[in-house]
Amino acid sequence: MTNTQIKLTARPVGNPKESDFSIEEIAIPTIQEGEVLVKTKYISLDPAMRGWMNDAKSYIKPIQLGEVFRAGTAGQIVESNHPNFTVGDYVTGGWGVQEYGISTGKDLLKVDTKIAPLTTYMATLGMPGLTAYFGLLNTGMPKEGETVVVSGASGAVGSVVGQIAKIKGCKVVGIAGSQEKCDYCVKELGFDACINYKTEDVRKALRAACPEGIDIYFDNVGGEILDVVLGQIRLKARIVICGAISQYNNTQPVKGPANYLSLLVNRAKMEGIVVFDNAANYGKASVEMAEWIKEGKLHSKVHLEKGVKNFLPTLMMLFSGKNFGKLLLEVE
Amino acid sequence: MTNTQIKLTARPVGNPKESDFSIEEIAIPTIQEGEVLVKTKYISLDPAMRGWMNDAKSYIKPIQLGEVFRAGTAGQIVESNHPNFTVGDYVTGGWGVQEYGISTGKDLLKVDTKIAPLTTYMATLGMPGLTAYFGLLNTGMPKEGETVVVSGASGAVGSVVGQIAKIKGCKVVGIAGSQEKCDYCVKELGFDACINYKTEDVRKALRAACPEGIDIYFDNVGGEILDVVLGQIRLKARIVICGAISQYNNTQPVKGPANYLSLLVNRAKMEGIVVFDNAANYGKASVEMAEWIKEGKLHSKVHLEKGVKNFLPTLMMLFSGKNFGKLLLEVE
Repeated sequence: MTNTQIKLTARPVGNPKESDFSIEEIAIPTIQEGEVLVKTKYISLDPAMRGWMNDAKSYIKPIQLGEVFRAGTAGQIVESNHPNFTVGDYVTGGWGVQEYGISTGKDLLKVDTKIAPLTTYMATLGMPGLTAYFGLLNTGMPKEGETVVVSGASGAVGSVVGQIAKIKGCKVVGIAGSQEKCDYCVKELGFDACINYKTEDVRKALRAACPEGIDIYFDNVGGEILDVVLGQIRLKARIVICGAISQYNNTQPVKGPANYLSLLVNRAKMEGIVVFDNAANYGKASVEMAEWIKEGKLHSKVHLEKGVKNFLPTLMMLFSGKNFGKLLLEVE
Repeated sequence: MTNTQIKLTARPVGNPKESDFSIEEIAIPTIQEGEVLVKTKYISLDPAMRGWMNDAKSYIKPIQLGEVFRAGTAGQIVESNHPNFTVGDYVTGGWGVQEYGISTGKDLLKVDTKIAPLTTYMATLGMPGLTAYFGLLNTGMPKEGETVVVSGASGAVGSVVGQIAKIKGCKVVGIAGSQEKCDYCVKELGFDACINYKTEDVRKALRAACPEGIDIYFDNVGGEILDVVLGQIRLKARIVICGAISQYNNTQPVKGPANYLSLLVNRAKMEGIVVFDNAANYGKASVEMAEWIKEGKLHSKVHLEKGVKNFLPTLMMLFSGKNFGKLLLEVE
């Protein structure tokens, strides 16, 4: 019985590669008084992880070399010396890319798998869903009848953004990387349209889908698509900068939005968001989203890959767009 | 007695040149019932004029080929068939780059030269001052003790931004293009510091002047300086996009801010402004600024050049930074 862990051992340049990580097998640790041992069931893989590998000032400190790789996790209590946790309890937390975690309970959240499956607490009811909720509602500030465009539309964040925008009475146009993803957004999630950026001329397709222009753009990808959208925003548009996955493995400088003066022409704003700023309101948001799930208004798709050792190739699926839905590593 | 006019005759590529304009001398027009004839005293030269020459969708329609070149103007009524205007009245308006204008009065504002000289109504109490006032106060939202950086610091807009920020209790750092301009900002306008971008390393100088980072950046120039500032903003910073004079004569695409993801890291926002949106509140703002002028808290500098025929070479001073203060053409 061992605990397999992934550690960062070098700072990647461009695409992360196997030699930037180590896979270690250590003994399962023994818990002390007040601690619990959690067996990992799911590990969240997120675009933001690429940023955490860089030794740069950001909204969170970089992962240190030799440290277990930071990740959102879900699992089941297998040993407990803590009064609030019982063996068998399901919890979410952030004990990183490893098969077992030890915790004093402070950073764990008990979840009820009768309300939603454990994977949903990593997706719509987890960080991606909360990012979508607060980013769209507090920063995007959608009004009924407005046009909302979201990139990474079938992804963990984008799919929730689009569905909440529909709940709020907006017209929603997604941008995604395959016909299958686009079909999912339109037919299963109820988007009004979805553009396949790999096969369509995004500029023309957006013009056709949003003839009156774009009120809100929720950006997960950056790069050329951000520029195209900037060229089609309406007066007083809001651009929510959630991420820029197209730029994270750059060895060249990030491509700045050449059309940023469209902000001036349209008195529009571009604002960055980080979900952690809303921690005080996670509970309220989760309750509202759980209700939407119950009412069948908020669907999610999970993409499962298996095994801690597959961390890197699985993570890289995010950057090539090979995942379809919230990407998780399942640990058996 | 003729009326000399400047008309746009071709759409410039890169730097505007003499052949893009015509100089015409026509007879002074005869006014009809309900009209006034104004003799131009001052013509405002503004960076925004470069954008008006392009045939592109913007916040205002392009100047048409063959049309008298659009400009803010100030002058004196020399003939009146209008009950509200008397010969001798001073007015501001927008009758363009010509020696005489005809108006029905709707687009004229009578001004009191006992409160401030006519040139002040083209500067601090005109569009540049109002742009600074609304852009800083409504979009920048300065709080006492915050650090405000302004580019084009000695210019018609920047100098007012910095002085209002001082009135609001902020620390103010300017960026300007000569030692003389920097000295003016610090010694005469009361800025805390001013960086000469032509001789100093702006990154290092800003770091030294704003060791705790930048809360508000009021940007008139764009380009590299915007990127440098983005690298030094604080949490919840506000970037007011007023202009991008460094980019207006580009024949290459505009340089987008490569550091725009600093908006995400710092949950900051970048927002474009156009003064016209505040027309309903011009009066209130002008009264407050006139009071500040009276109290000696708001100074302005005017740079006068002479003659309608010098329109183009004078306009180009804005782009080379050769003007010092609000640039006006004086018409005799």
